[in-house]
Amino acid sequence: MLSSTRQMSSKIAGPALRVSKHVPATHRAASGLAKFDWEDPLNLESQLTDEEIAIRDTAREYCQENLLPRVLHGWRTEEFDYGILPEMGKLGLLGPTIQGYGCAGTSNVAYGLIAREIERVDSGYRSTASVQSSLVMHPINEFGTDAQKEKYLPRLARGEIVGAFGLTEPNHGSDPAGMETMAEEIDGGFVINGSKTWISNAPAADVFIIWARCKWDNRVRGFILDKGMKGLTAPAIKNKVALRASITGSIFMDSVQVPHDALLPKSNGLSSAFSCLNSARFGISWGVMGALEDCIYRTREYALERHQFKRPLASFQLVQKKLVDAHTEVALGLHASLQVGRLKDLDKVAPEMISMVKRNNCGKALQHSRIVLDILGGNACADEYHVGRHVANLQVTNTYEGTNDVHALILGKAITGIAAFAN
Amino acid sequence: MLSSTRQMSSKIAGPALRVSKHVPATHRAASGLAKFDWEDPLNLESQLTDEEIAIRDTAREYCQENLLPRVLHGWRTEEFDYGILPEMGKLGLLGPTIQGYGCAGTSNVAYGLIAREIERVDSGYRSTASVQSSLVMHPINEFGTDAQKEKYLPRLARGEIVGAFGLTEPNHGSDPAGMETMAEEIDGGFVINGSKTWISNAPAADVFIIWARCKWDNRVRGFILDKGMKGLTAPAIKNKVALRASITGSIFMDSVQVPHDALLPKSNGLSSAFSCLNSARFGISWGVMGALEDCIYRTREYALERHQFKRPLASFQLVQKKLVDAHTEVALGLHASLQVGRLKDLDKVAPEMISMVKRNNCGKALQHSRIVLDILGGNACADEYHVGRHVANLQVTNTYEGTNDVHALILGKAITGIAAFAN
Amino acid sequence: MLSSTRQMSSKIAGPALRVSKHVPATHRAASGLAKFDWEDPLNLESQLTDEEIAIRDTAREYCQENLLPRVLHGWRTEEFDYGILPEMGKLGLLGPTIQGYGCAGTSNVAYGLIAREIERVDSGYRSTASVQSSLVMHPINEFGTDAQKEKYLPRLARGEIVGAFGLTEPNHGSDPAGMETMAEEIDGGFVINGSKTWISNAPAADVFIIWARCKWDNRVRGFILDKGMKGLTAPAIKNKVALRASITGSIFMDSVQVPHDALLPKSNGLSSAFSCLNSARFGISWGVMGALEDCIYRTREYALERHQFKRPLASFQLVQKKLVDAHTEVALGLHASLQVGRLKDLDKVAPEMISMVKRNNCGKALQHSRIVLDILGGNACADEYHVGRHVANLQVTNTYEGTNDVHALILGKAITGIAAFAN
Amino acid sequence: MLSSTRQMSSKIAGPALRVSKHVPATHRAASGLAKFDWEDPLNLESQLTDEEIAIRDTAREYCQENLLPRVLHGWRTEEFDYGILPEMGKLGLLGPTIQGYGCAGTSNVAYGLIAREIERVDSGYRSTASVQSSLVMHPINEFGTDAQKEKYLPRLARGEIVGAFGLTEPNHGSDPAGMETMAEEIDGGFVINGSKTWISNAPAADVFIIWARCKWDNRVRGFILDKGMKGLTAPAIKNKVALRASITGSIFMDSVQVPHDALLPKSNGLSSAFSCLNSARFGISWGVMGALEDCIYRTREYALERHQFKRPLASFQLVQKKLVDAHTEVALGLHASLQVGRLKDLDKVAPEMISMVKRNNCGKALQHSRIVLDILGGNACADEYHVGRHVANLQVTNTYEGTNDVHALILGKAITGIAAFAN
Repeated sequence: MLSSTRQMSSKIAGPALRVSKHVPATHRAASGLAKFDWEDPLNLESQLTDEEIAIRDTAREYCQENLLPRVLHGWRTEEFDYGILPEMGKLGLLGPTIQGYGCAGTSNVAYGLIAREIERVDSGYRSTASVQSSLVMHPINEFGTDAQKEKYLPRLARGEIVGAFGLTEPNHGSDPAGMETMAEEIDGGFVINGSKTWISNAPAADVFIIWARCKWDNRVRGFILDKGMKGLTAPAIKNKVALRASITGSIFMDSVQVPHDALLPKSNGLSSAFSCLNSARFGISWGVMGALEDCIYRTREYALERHQFKRPLASFQLVQKKLVDAHTEVALGLHASLQVGRLKDLDKVAPEMISMVKRNNCGKALQHSRIVLDILGGNACADEYHVGRHVANLQVTNTYEGTNDVHALILGKAITGIAAFAN
Repeated sequence: MLSSTRQMSSKIAGPALRVSKHVPATHRAASGLAKFDWEDPLNLESQLTDEEIAIRDTAREYCQENLLPRVLHGWRTEEFDYGILPEMGKLGLLGPTIQGYGCAGTSNVAYGLIAREIERVDSGYRSTASVQSSLVMHPINEFGTDAQKEKYLPRLARGEIVGAFGLTEPNHGSDPAGMETMAEEIDGGFVINGSKTWISNAPAADVFIIWARCKWDNRVRGFILDKGMKGLTAPAIKNKVALRASITGSIFMDSVQVPHDALLPKSNGLSSAFSCLNSARFGISWGVMGALEDCIYRTREYALERHQFKRPLASFQLVQKKLVDAHTEVALGLHASLQVGRLKDLDKVAPEMISMVKRNNCGKALQHSRIVLDILGGNACADEYHVGRHVANLQVTNTYEGTNDVHALILGKAITGIAAFAN
Repeated sequence: MLSSTRQMSSKIAGPALRVSKHVPATHRAASGLAKFDWEDPLNLESQLTDEEIAIRDTAREYCQENLLPRVLHGWRTEEFDYGILPEMGKLGLLGPTIQGYGCAGTSNVAYGLIAREIERVDSGYRSTASVQSSLVMHPINEFGTDAQKEKYLPRLARGEIVGAFGLTEPNHGSDPAGMETMAEEIDGGFVINGSKTWISNAPAADVFIIWARCKWDNRVRGFILDKGMKGLTAPAIKNKVALRASITGSIFMDSVQVPHDALLPKSNGLSSAFSCLNSARFGISWGVMGALEDCIYRTREYALERHQFKRPLASFQLVQKKLVDAHTEVALGLHASLQVGRLKDLDKVAPEMISMVKRNNCGKALQHSRIVLDILGGNACADEYHVGRHVANLQVTNTYEGTNDVHALILGKAITGIAAFAN
Repeated sequence: MLSSTRQMSSKIAGPALRVSKHVPATHRAASGLAKFDWEDPLNLESQLTDEEIAIRDTAREYCQENLLPRVLHGWRTEEFDYGILPEMGKLGLLGPTIQGYGCAGTSNVAYGLIAREIERVDSGYRSTASVQSSLVMHPINEFGTDAQKEKYLPRLARGEIVGAFGLTEPNHGSDPAGMETMAEEIDGGFVINGSKTWISNAPAADVFIIWARCKWDNRVRGFILDKGMKGLTAPAIKNKVALRASITGSIFMDSVQVPHDALLPKSNGLSSAFSCLNSARFGISWGVMGALEDCIYRTREYALERHQFKRPLASFQLVQKKLVDAHTEVALGLHASLQVGRLKDLDKVAPEMISMVKRNNCGKALQHSRIVLDILGGNACADEYHVGRHVANLQVTNTYEGTNDVHALILGKAITGIAAFAN
């Protein structure tokens, strides 16, 4: 649990990453100017609470010490590591913003900081956690009954069971309003037919939040399905070119019968599903900044050590510019997400704000991770250097949960008042 | 004075610009979500004090009502409008962060908000004001004697006299350490020889802050020169392709004799000059966002009104994407500058932070003003549409006070520890 | 006439530009490799005929010796120089591809080479010439009667009279099919009502090719109108931010009566007007490469001469990259236009090919002229350095005769089979 | 052999690819205009000889029918397919420009066309073939004795033996002049010590062209080493993130003794090695255009079939623009490489020309393959869609054989006369 981890030693998790960077005494330069800390260029730390810093440090330490050593195996084999969610659960990293049910009850910013630390290692691991927290625990907490919360949330929070979120359908990626999965009321419950695809965690999931159009009133609602129900299968999609450390699959529902209490009763329309996406997208906006930071740290280190023409690569203007452009975007993206997180804590966030930071941060992370990758030269091709893996992952993060273009059109509608999705 | 302007009516300054946008009652949508305000997408307003909002509204109203109607004439004729600085002085917009001497004593963020409103009209007008506030009043306040402050600051604050800042030399733009202007001590004072170029305000200036290398110890210091001194001339540079509403010139000093009290005694080395640049660059980082906002507002309006193929341009995906990309960069740039401003208020700012927001905001403003300009089609060519003027201006803002590349290398040095300026 | 100019001395027109670069003996390096000529990086010269080279040299010499000295005056004052078209006519540079009527009968590639040399000085001058050749002489030659050809072509070829082309209307820029100008048959001819805008040459024109929808069959056709006809006015549009060395205006036709022989009888539908645009766009694709070349040559020279940090700017990696990127695009753009020109000579060109090179070359010229402009630092702002003027001009060339986006959608339709103009 | 393949049936190799596109009768539209062929937008076909077209068709058919079905297996397993080089050899695709020794003696353009067809399937397969042809057969043919040619070329041409090229060293990627591998003359031959890395084909190679600094005069020369020599090992580098269908390794030489006739006697200095790189880079410039074409064809097809918001993706402006931008770059890149190929055939090529097309085409292929990848949405992540694989591969092609930046600096030196490699 997070409360206990605050007593954990804050020893440095890896050579490139520090914790507890607040050192006010030495931090100040003479004459009203501060010393520049390139790892925190606009002093994000000064905007965080002590609790948020402690959570961030806990997450960083865990991820660097426990996830980083496993990621190459996961990437190479596409094997889902069942140990990870329980470990995260132990530290309070799952569903952290939820009050009660064994959850930590943190701020949204703390949730973002956790996502950033996990994705600093791998976007796939962060996806696994995002689904659990934002797409499974969040809707149960938001739209579920007390009984549903009691039944599922504590076990999900501990990582004992794995959740998946079934919204996207084979023919409706950017356009969920076209949903074809149907729920029909029958004696004693509902019967659900349809299929979902590109569902993170699905093949490993114990519990599925399935969104279906309800035949009786044509509205979309969420249902909780349990693994093993008759007619429910979730085969894995293999041979992915990205997010290989996480598991992805389809969900097929062939007349799956569920009891009445499988319905999330407060879910009502696609906006309920979008509420989950908003939570997840907010987390992604932080996560991808962590991935880009890792790309910067690793290529900076490489550029300092690697010499060509008898000088370190880092002394070349063309190399410095690559690092600097990426580095600025991280600073801007993090502070924008911070502002959105603070507004979210105050119930003052608009979905378009989340579209803005999700789109911007994913787009910039992808663009600049690709640019700094080139610093590695031939070694860019070796997965041990990690950056190529981030680059492949970030292409997916830029696409899932609303493609870059779809979010552009969401914002375009907000700015102009004209919907251009179908143009 | 600002204190009185807070009682000014806050009526809307122009059709596209609102003031006092805080309408908490109607601002909230149902279910914990806020309504999105495209003119303030990440709710910057919530981060401002009431005083800052009042100053912003005053500046906005003045600029829209009094500067906008004059800008085309200024642009077309390259005539300096001597009326503007006194008007700004009256409203307390000059040297606003200075305490005393008739100055308003505002936060640095308020200073940034003023720059944004002026540059929303024209970068040239903002340059005129920046020089007065950051490059002339700031060094007198920071490095001057009480007598110097008493003599110059109140009149500069009222805009009665015009100031100029002589640092850049014909052969030393990005590299001020190569300065050739020399000050030699003589009986009764100093004699100064040298020349400066691309100096904003110079031909109209009554007072010049001149940076010179002191022969006796080879250090750079600032001197206050008055118009009319023998050997001092400041001819205008005409036929500019940008910043035509402001005036620019050279400064030639042919054995100009100044008394001992012309020296700014607390100035000591180039770092003193850089302190002025830091203040100016911070203001520029806000100003250019205002210029880009104006480009967005105008092209958005045009895209809504102009029809092609029987539909408004604003309904075309390619047009929406242009607007959205620009709009996001404004939001990110403003919030980054806000953070820097808050740190500046706390004496926690590092110069590299200012390099980051100056470079990013100028670069993004230039890039995206150019992109949205295309929305105007053939009308982009007419100066009445204003955007082409902003585009030309923003190229200069991206270059002066440290080119985009020089700031990249400043940041590159901060990140890698290696100076690559001469590479 | 071109035939005579081939005997003209080929002395070098300016310091930066050579003529007759074919020096096979010294051009070869050892061992099967050639020496690289950065001014002709992919050896375009080897693809040109002797006649084309002679025409190019003549045009280059004229433009550098006679146009370059006038361009700053034209730019600053927006005055149309009536002397230029007669001078060009004397050298055979107007309507050069036309056979007979005093025209030179050159290849299309030669026409492109002429455009490139004129635009190397200024896009406005090239626009003036393009209109005369492609938009006025071409339709008369293509769609006119022998009498019309005899009456107009020789005088247009000599530059004695100025032509203008009226297609674009105030409400129909990208969408000429919406044309509102109407021609109605009356006793003894036609009466024409309507207005045109952003028409190059219009205020100076003696003859106008006006496109109007014919009331009797709703088809668009071209008409030749003469200056001074009752109801015909062509006021200038002043205060342009670009193409200031050329003149632009509107055309208002208030019941202008024209005789029957004003009709271009072989014009039939918008495709006739598009035929003119194809000719002009082809020329633009060459012209803008000349403008970008001038930007490269000037900024390269500047970068070699200007020192910062005790080294020439040209030794900085960030400066070299700017020059190299621009330089490569010129090479690619010229060779693509060469191929299109050769196909045009063989009647094997498709309009989409012209869309491709017009769009690509204009877009790249704009993008890279802006990038190299930054090399000038503060001097970018002075019109004597010429590059800022090119940058402003190229924004217009990227927009007129089909915006970059409209050509993208023309090509998009060709690739996908789906028209997305109204999307 | 190619001579026989010209009688091969030219049936269409796959749904998306045609052969023998010359259909002059139907190709022409009315009125002097041609019909646009989006698969050959600037009519490259018209610039090719019949023999080149036949070779291209043979290569295309082989690659689509025989390589495409194997590529996913190769990509997934990183297994080298020993069957491929013999198949290519049978068709005359290896060392095709060499005269005699069982080689086809084609033009350089034909070599480029072959590279394009192989890389249309996979950059790894093309790399395998490039090494064999340009980096192994070329130096033996260029710098070898008759005996060496007789011994190696026929078997390499038939693909019976596999070649590798050892130039790059662990500490000297962009900077081969720093080479540390040494050859020392001993009784009866030479002894070679050193190591090479990131060597394509090495683990599978029977013959190695090794570049070493000769102790007696400090010049670099090439040596032919045979697999199995004592002290010679070539372990594979596994877990690559790109070029997984080809095999890559290191070469370690621990006092490898070779006879005197292992020396390539006409090799003399690094320029000999660069001659090989020039040949390979020329082929790469064609190859990557094939890969980008495949990305365009596949995403275009997807965009036509996939519907969102009830319309094909291909009808969206944002999708069309992605396709169009990529499509134009292919046309420009191919025609530039064609010109370089023709000059190469005439011994008129300069190395900088090859730097230009290698750099441009690799850079554009990478940039635009990434952009069109986004069209696939979530399916971008599945390797069955092939485009993600191309994207990963093209990052390496943009880096190997001279990174994008190194070629920029080669061109920068050619333009400015100043070497900035070590800046």
